[in-house]
Amino acid sequence: MNFNLEEAIEVLERTPKTLGYFLSDLSDGWLQCNEGEGTWNVTEVVEHLIEGEKTNWIPRLETILQDGESKPFPPFDRFAHLNETTEKSMEQKLAEFTTIRASNINKLKTIVDSDSQLELTGIHPAFGVVKLRELLSTWVVHDLTHINQCVRVMAERYRTDVGPWNEYLGILKR
Amino acid sequence: MNFNLEEAIEVLERTPKTLGYFLSDLSDGWLQCNEGEGTWNVTEVVEHLIEGEKTNWIPRLETILQDGESKPFPPFDRFAHLNETTEKSMEQKLAEFTTIRASNINKLKTIVDSDSQLELTGIHPAFGVVKLRELLSTWVVHDLTHINQCVRVMAERYRTDVGPWNEYLGILKR
Repeated sequence: MNFNLEEAIEVLERTPKTLGYFLSDLSDGWLQCNEGEGTWNVTEVVEHLIEGEKTNWIPRLETILQDGESKPFPPFDRFAHLNETTEKSMEQKLAEFTTIRASNINKLKTIVDSDSQLELTGIHPAFGVVKLRELLSTWVVHDLTHINQCVRVMAERYRTDVGPWNEYLGILKR
Repeated sequence: MNFNLEEAIEVLERTPKTLGYFLSDLSDGWLQCNEGEGTWNVTEVVEHLIEGEKTNWIPRLETILQDGESKPFPPFDRFAHLNETTEKSMEQKLAEFTTIRASNINKLKTIVDSDSQLELTGIHPAFGVVKLRELLSTWVVHDLTHINQCVRVMAERYRTDVGPWNEYLGILKR
């Protein structure tokens, strides 16, 4: 096991700025491309990250702390953001993600203040018993998964353009 | 074909700052982890990106412009950076990458100033004839490949820690 709360927070607090630099002020070509029908563009990925901040990580954490195994996690719809029609720009969405993430990290630091809490358990609707440590590790790796997705979606746009080099470029292997 | 020089430069100029925010001031645990024997940690990835700025992209571009198909590309050793013993910190390496990338983008803008040049050709030692447009597309996707690698290497560190969630986390699929 490698989980450590301070190190996990290092990643959680870097994600908004990392995506902020990567995705701000890009041409529409980069913002609108995806990996084919039914896949997300980078704007949809950022919306999904915002949705997770609102309805997934902290609510689940609070359920573990308040209800333990007596109540399953509140539902989280991984596709909820796709139903929202919003006129916000990517820069506004990144700003929203930055604000809500900072607030959630503050909340995390307030409610988890001892290593013994990491072993507390709750009930995941599909997996059954899970530990608080696993939920927090997943929050970190979920960030990394979606940073990877943004980068991969953009690489896909040049799949044909790279010509014979595609065999050297791991990101195009799929 | 989606390649467009201005859009390609958008990505090339974002990579140093994106990695700068993602990798600066991280704990050694994040900087030193890798995906197993013979794989790179994030420090080695940044060293490889610096090496590419010095000996790969611009030298190959210049070979196409100056020699066309009369001379193959100068050799590029993808593992050269592993032989260097350097005491520089990650922050110093990121600063070096930022400086050399900015200088190379300026050079790119100076020597490629018309779309007709994108069709010029050179000789790749393994692939044979390649186009300038393919080389530039590859520079972009090479950045994206290595951003993804940094993110994936860090996710690997929590493979066991996420418990049952590993089946939902695409980045851990391999």
